Amino acid sequence: MAEDGLPAVDKLTISDTVEEADFSQRVLIRSILGRPDGGAGLAGRTLNVGGWVKKGREQGKGSFAFLELNDGSCPANLQLIIYSDVAPLGQFTPTGTCLHVEGVLQMPPEDKQGKQSIELKVLKVLDVGTVDPAKYPLPKTRLTLEFLRDYVHLRPRTNTIAAIARIRNALAYATHTFFQKHGFLYVHTPIITTSDCEGAGEMFQVTTLINDAEKTEKELINNPPPSQEDLDLAKSVVKEKGEIVAKLKSDKAGKPEITAAVAELTKAKENLSKLEERFKLKPGIPKKDGKVDYGQDFFARQAFLTVSGQLQVETFACALSSVYTFGPTFRAEHSHTSRHLAEFWMVEPEIAFADIEDDMKCAEAYVRFLCQWLLDNCLDDMEFMVEKFDKNAIKRLQMVASTNFIRLSYTEAVTILEDAVSKGHKFENKVEWGIDLASEHEKYLTEVKYESPVIVYNYPKGIKAFYMKVNSDKKTVAAMDVLVPKVGELIGGSQREENYEVIKERILEMGLPLEPYEWYLDLRRYGTVKHSGFGLGFERMILFATGIDNIRDVIPFPRYPGRADL
Amino acid sequence: MAEDGLPAVDKLTISDTVEEADFSQRVLIRSILGRPDGGAGLAGRTLNVGGWVKKGREQGKGSFAFLELNDGSCPANLQLIIYSDVAPLGQFTPTGTCLHVEGVLQMPPEDKQGKQSIELKVLKVLDVGTVDPAKYPLPKTRLTLEFLRDYVHLRPRTNTIAAIARIRNALAYATHTFFQKHGFLYVHTPIITTSDCEGAGEMFQVTTLINDAEKTEKELINNPPPSQEDLDLAKSVVKEKGEIVAKLKSDKAGKPEITAAVAELTKAKENLSKLEERFKLKPGIPKKDGKVDYGQDFFARQAFLTVSGQLQVETFACALSSVYTFGPTFRAEHSHTSRHLAEFWMVEPEIAFADIEDDMKCAEAYVRFLCQWLLDNCLDDMEFMVEKFDKNAIKRLQMVASTNFIRLSYTEAVTILEDAVSKGHKFENKVEWGIDLASEHEKYLTEVKYESPVIVYNYPKGIKAFYMKVNSDKKTVAAMDVLVPKVGELIGGSQREENYEVIKERILEMGLPLEPYEWYLDLRRYGTVKHSGFGLGFERMILFATGIDNIRDVIPFPRYPGRADL
Repeated sequence: MAEDGLPAVDKLTISDTVEEADFSQRVLIRSILGRPDGGAGLAGRTLNVGGWVKKGREQGKGSFAFLELNDGSCPANLQLIIYSDVAPLGQFTPTGTCLHVEGVLQMPPEDKQGKQSIELKVLKVLDVGTVDPAKYPLPKTRLTLEFLRDYVHLRPRTNTIAAIARIRNALAYATHTFFQKHGFLYVHTPIITTSDCEGAGEMFQVTTLINDAEKTEKELINNPPPSQEDLDLAKSVVKEKGEIVAKLKSDKAGKPEITAAVAELTKAKENLSKLEERFKLKPGIPKKDGKVDYGQDFFARQAFLTVSGQLQVETFACALSSVYTFGPTFRAEHSHTSRHLAEFWMVEPEIAFADIEDDMKCAEAYVRFLCQWLLDNCLDDMEFMVEKFDKNAIKRLQMVASTNFIRLSYTEAVTILEDAVSKGHKFENKVEWGIDLASEHEKYLTEVKYESPVIVYNYPKGIKAFYMKVNSDKKTVAAMDVLVPKVGELIGGSQREENYEVIKERILEMGLPLEPYEWYLDLRRYGTVKHSGFGLGFERMILFATGIDNIRDVIPFPRYPGRADL
Repeated sequence: MAEDGLPAVDKLTISDTVEEADFSQRVLIRSILGRPDGGAGLAGRTLNVGGWVKKGREQGKGSFAFLELNDGSCPANLQLIIYSDVAPLGQFTPTGTCLHVEGVLQMPPEDKQGKQSIELKVLKVLDVGTVDPAKYPLPKTRLTLEFLRDYVHLRPRTNTIAAIARIRNALAYATHTFFQKHGFLYVHTPIITTSDCEGAGEMFQVTTLINDAEKTEKELINNPPPSQEDLDLAKSVVKEKGEIVAKLKSDKAGKPEITAAVAELTKAKENLSKLEERFKLKPGIPKKDGKVDYGQDFFARQAFLTVSGQLQVETFACALSSVYTFGPTFRAEHSHTSRHLAEFWMVEPEIAFADIEDDMKCAEAYVRFLCQWLLDNCLDDMEFMVEKFDKNAIKRLQMVASTNFIRLSYTEAVTILEDAVSKGHKFENKVEWGIDLASEHEKYLTEVKYESPVIVYNYPKGIKAFYMKVNSDKKTVAAMDVLVPKVGELIGGSQREENYEVIKERILEMGLPLEPYEWYLDLRRYGTVKHSGFGLGFERMILFATGIDNIRDVIPFPRYPGRADL
């Protein structure tokens, strides 16, 4: 089992092939330990490896040392054995030490072969980056994920964050592979947006106004603005010089004389206009009619960080049919929960000529593909997760990869929940048709009732966004949520309303202004198309896969209220 | 040639296979026209297609119409023939009309077979999204790229923007494929950053302060803050209630009486603290010691949009060895050129155990891989580019894919440029050792002197960033730029200074403060490693590939001073 689970290595055969890291002078440790024989068949080979010492200990009264070396290519460490005649041993043993060495692979003594199939006897130390263990910020024991959040720059050196990084990488590449395989085009939707689709309150503003204001204020202190008198004086100089020119002209004076006077007038005018310009400089953010004057901001209007690429990617779906976006999105919510980030990544496909059924089919195929991909490519990291964090993590992936998702209409889901209540199940939130399903309801459906992924579709119109297609019952919209054990809602999607009149009415009904959506309405005005899409919260998928509890630990650089390290 | 160049279709054989779009009810037009036989072998097949009409014309006195249909899967259009007994024809012919139809593939009449190998006779119209040609914003003729920048939501429907979108998609997927193949892990570096690595002037600020200030100001108008008198009054109430409690206690009054008095005191205290809170509310951005008080901003400090993920991705390279980031980056520069965007995408690999030689090897391999990928996967789009924009576009890709890049030290490059000057070549910028090479110098090297990609390395220390490795000559750093015909600098990279003392000195030498770089210095303090990396401007690569002149046309949603549509 363990052997089957080792990560796939391109072109690996059970000969003496090892994978050279093409652009660095070493062999990937994965290509040694990841072989079906655990590397045993490579005994006798001389090669270079590089990595960081996880654990080191001197033995044989200081005559040699064992070092567990990890290079990030897989969770397993390669055991190095280094003798004191190669180099003084003390510098190598502290955890965190970086080593680049040449060595020869050899079978460990027979009594040690249970643990290691192969070890590297160091012949030459090419480079060493030492660590003073008294100063190294990461303690060897009691290293909690919470503690590590204060050391985001060093935490990739821990087994857990490294395993999550490999799983995250695998899920990202699997995402691209899935959509490319199905003919979807990857579209980079904008990060800076002027479309405020879901209410400005939760959006970050992107601006250069504060910086400009600070510059102006500094400028005004160093070089005070002109007074009204300065201005009046400059105006009177212009007037005077103008009169001189007029007089010379009416006197029919000589050309050189007039030219000189005109030059003086021009100079006076320039001086006046400079003063007038500086007179207008005011400290603080520029205002107009009592409001911030965004006309003076970088984009000449108020700009935000995007909360979703959906509306923008629709412009490409309504031209190129099958597209997706995969990028960062932002919420300026003051949520201090283990489920919220201010910056997170979303995968948002959008498909033309597709209805809600197609949308559900795509969402299911995508999630199952991701699960199977991890089983095929990251089983060693998943085994680490099972051992350290969540004994069900692999089982959950296997279950999802091999299960047809249950499909329930919202109305059916509510009936099931009401049924549970009548049988004595307690929910904190009241269950009745029209409510937005709470997390506890979603978990009941996917974890208790079905123990399976569940897709709930056709939600009440009143609790969903304006762009979702109104069903023929006029009460529900063609929206769907994919619920999975452990995290609940993983995906939210819908068929989009493609009828111009209906969507226009929905915008107005929700009390939104039409003007900002004119471009979006154009997609329905001209050559409109039935289309559908969804969004998957990428960090939620990683929480689901790994069993990690806090979303701050599954993104390399978490951003939340009060914290944005590095 | 044209046939070989058609895009690869997974599992396509010259049987009667067509590629179903798995999640929408249609067949990709690419899988019909992209076959080596141009689709001829599929004659007789009944299937669904969907797309937008590029050109439509009624013929045979209105008895039938020809429609050129495009679905975005390839540049080629499928010809539809629809008879008036199926549906009234007038609604289908305007450019931009969306059609979803069922039809049967048939060979066109023999005299037309030069142009079309196959056409679809429409049996049934499943859906139509009409266009009123009098109102459609895109004119049929004289549709310039500049005009289209005012219609970013509709421009994906044009042949040019669609071809660029497919090429951009191909280059993005090729990027992931290349790095994954070589064992690099994809790391999502942060978009919001508090590390101001290259000077705040050109960075966008991310803030909620302005929004909060606007809310406060509105609040203060609706509900004016308490005056000093209000406060004094509330204070005296607290004092009075306190005295009552004290008196009751010293009088040894009954418990219920004391409890009631304490409750009143508590209420008075609460009221006072609310008033004090509101008394502090000031209109405008919060200030402290005359400066903006970022302690009150969302992240409790000043935050920006990233200008590069390099420094952050180094934390992963110094733990997991080979990594890369591919994401959006930002510059708040007021540049109105055809080469600058405020939001653009960068690819930044970072490799541990790698020196500048490895770095150059990786950069060359990556660029050549991208060029070959386009030749293998996008030749039809490239042929469109050659026809419409740049007759050398394909030749340029072929040349780069098959050429070993010239390598020149900076010193050699300057000698060559000086030589050119002495032979009469005119440059606007003076050539001498120590200058930063100007665009004209770079173009001379790559376009005139060598007509080949050129890598210039070992630049003078004084013109390069603090993190670049100082060479043993103490005058130069191990930096390198990849120059290519058409765009000049495509890649900039370097070996990073891994020596703690040296990099610390460099930071101080450049007049930068140490504190913000302490985390970066930690990477050198603990287990330091030789490492190198580079950055490729993704839009520059697309300009290079397509021959398009303006960078605003190769990103889906361009952001530049004064403009951030959608």
